[in-house]
Amino acid sequence: MDFLKNYAEFVEQEIKNLELPSSPIDLYDPLKYFLAIGGKRIRPILTLMSGELFGLKKEDVINGALAIEFLHNFSLIHDDIMDKAPLRRGFETVHEKWNQDVAILAGDVLMIKAYQCLAKQQGDLKKLMDAFNQSAIEICEGQQFDMEFETKESVSISEYIEMIRLKTSVLLGCALKLGAIAADASKVDSDLIYNFGVNIGISFQIQDDILDLYGNPATFGKQIGGDVLANKKTILFLLALENANEEQKESLLNLQKELNPDRKIQLAKELFDSIDVRGKAVELKNKYSILANQNLQKIQVETCKKQNLIQLSDYLLVRKD
Amino acid sequence: MDFLKNYAEFVEQEIKNLELPSSPIDLYDPLKYFLAIGGKRIRPILTLMSGELFGLKKEDVINGALAIEFLHNFSLIHDDIMDKAPLRRGFETVHEKWNQDVAILAGDVLMIKAYQCLAKQQGDLKKLMDAFNQSAIEICEGQQFDMEFETKESVSISEYIEMIRLKTSVLLGCALKLGAIAADASKVDSDLIYNFGVNIGISFQIQDDILDLYGNPATFGKQIGGDVLANKKTILFLLALENANEEQKESLLNLQKELNPDRKIQLAKELFDSIDVRGKAVELKNKYSILANQNLQKIQVETCKKQNLIQLSDYLLVRKD
Repeated sequence: MDFLKNYAEFVEQEIKNLELPSSPIDLYDPLKYFLAIGGKRIRPILTLMSGELFGLKKEDVINGALAIEFLHNFSLIHDDIMDKAPLRRGFETVHEKWNQDVAILAGDVLMIKAYQCLAKQQGDLKKLMDAFNQSAIEICEGQQFDMEFETKESVSISEYIEMIRLKTSVLLGCALKLGAIAADASKVDSDLIYNFGVNIGISFQIQDDILDLYGNPATFGKQIGGDVLANKKTILFLLALENANEEQKESLLNLQKELNPDRKIQLAKELFDSIDVRGKAVELKNKYSILANQNLQKIQVETCKKQNLIQLSDYLLVRKD
Repeated sequence: MDFLKNYAEFVEQEIKNLELPSSPIDLYDPLKYFLAIGGKRIRPILTLMSGELFGLKKEDVINGALAIEFLHNFSLIHDDIMDKAPLRRGFETVHEKWNQDVAILAGDVLMIKAYQCLAKQQGDLKKLMDAFNQSAIEICEGQQFDMEFETKESVSISEYIEMIRLKTSVLLGCALKLGAIAADASKVDSDLIYNFGVNIGISFQIQDDILDLYGNPATFGKQIGGDVLANKKTILFLLALENANEEQKESLLNLQKELNPDRKIQLAKELFDSIDVRGKAVELKNKYSILANQNLQKIQVETCKKQNLIQLSDYLLVRKD
């Protein structure tokens, strides 16, 4: 994580340097608050690294990087309303700390701020806009699919993969693509680095689902089994359902009604183990990691310059579980 | 209104021609619904007329026009949530017909669609973006000020004018400015037509406040006295407060507590008449109409080409009251 420090500090400093107005106070205070509670700034770092890969300096792509970070934070503020989430990164969400109207409007302004940053980014603005707009729309589509899946009776593995591709993965691809466009990289290389990011995103999300049940409680950061308790249709549940025999299928559906939380998690583990769900999920995760690496390898830049991105992808995907 | 028909039909047709995806259904159905219930399409028509003024054809500025219309509709969908409005243009609002989450997300996507249109507009994209972003942010600021004014004890006339400038007027200015930028008009002319629009917007909003109490019930389209009944701080109320003597001030504050609606409206009229609020409001309205016309006159284009815009501004501002 040490190799990320310089990048993260650079992004952090640029966010601090933003001169946001003081009034209307209930519009800009929530923005400042939400941007300050941060996160790891992985997405803007991807833009910086991609810009460097194609020959630019960090400073040359910071506006694109901020645009991506703001787009991400806009979607979090609005998603938190829809998900009725009380906390984000351990802090109160905007709609909790202020109210829902404030959160809607703060998200809206942050989105427009994202476009203001994008407009300042060097490079072909039309191409930057096209990449950015497509991903922004897909993020909304992904969020909608995610909400629909909650009440939908059956969701296929491929529908689920498509949902996480839209909801979380295209943003990683877009972050990288902006760096490539800013550097005037070829269309082929821009698409390769985009696909590198999207596949990392899918792989990461599958891993996140795996860690929900099989993660190390000391390092995972969320409650182990939280998805199981919430009856979420994660990749584990969907793989279990797809590979279950009739008896196992019945147990899976009965599991949803179990009220004792410890017992519910224990039963889920036993059932998933009997279907080797973890192995199947890891296999799927690896499929997308490999796809990601294949795309990175094909980019027409010396391998040594790719080290930062390889290290970042390892950091994201080779978590201890 | 006949001279608007061609323009409105052109905009309507272009909106119908949009190929919006069918899925996710709860994301795109609300969008299609809201865009179909229409309105008079004044804002995109302003962009078309401005483009023509500076030598372009309607077709050359349609993307900028749609961007403005989408920005406007995005802000309506989100404002309706915040205002808990059940109806818009006589139809159910999106959060009423679907639910609030759907309305948040539909608004978000519409906003991104606005930027997609903008990116397709001919002309200097950086300049188009700068104008568009500034107005988009100001609209959010205006909405926030408007909400804050509801609970704020005292609001000055100049604060009120600034709020309506941000919330509704800059969008008219921006609509016109996009047409000018698309046509590569001079900076001076772009600013003049922007100021023409902003001043029309302020004048129109003041007129709207006047019509609330003094409009013709047969043609106004809203309930006469609605603002009075809701204790809204309109320009009439603020002018009354500013010009009232101690006794009238007390009557004004007592008026807020009156429960009988007919009596409340009657009392407001009597009180406002005794302070000549209507005359003062019309004077203020005229001040901004005159400013608008002065800006239009200064634009370096033959006067005959300005006829459409003059006619449109008359249509907006010379309503029978």
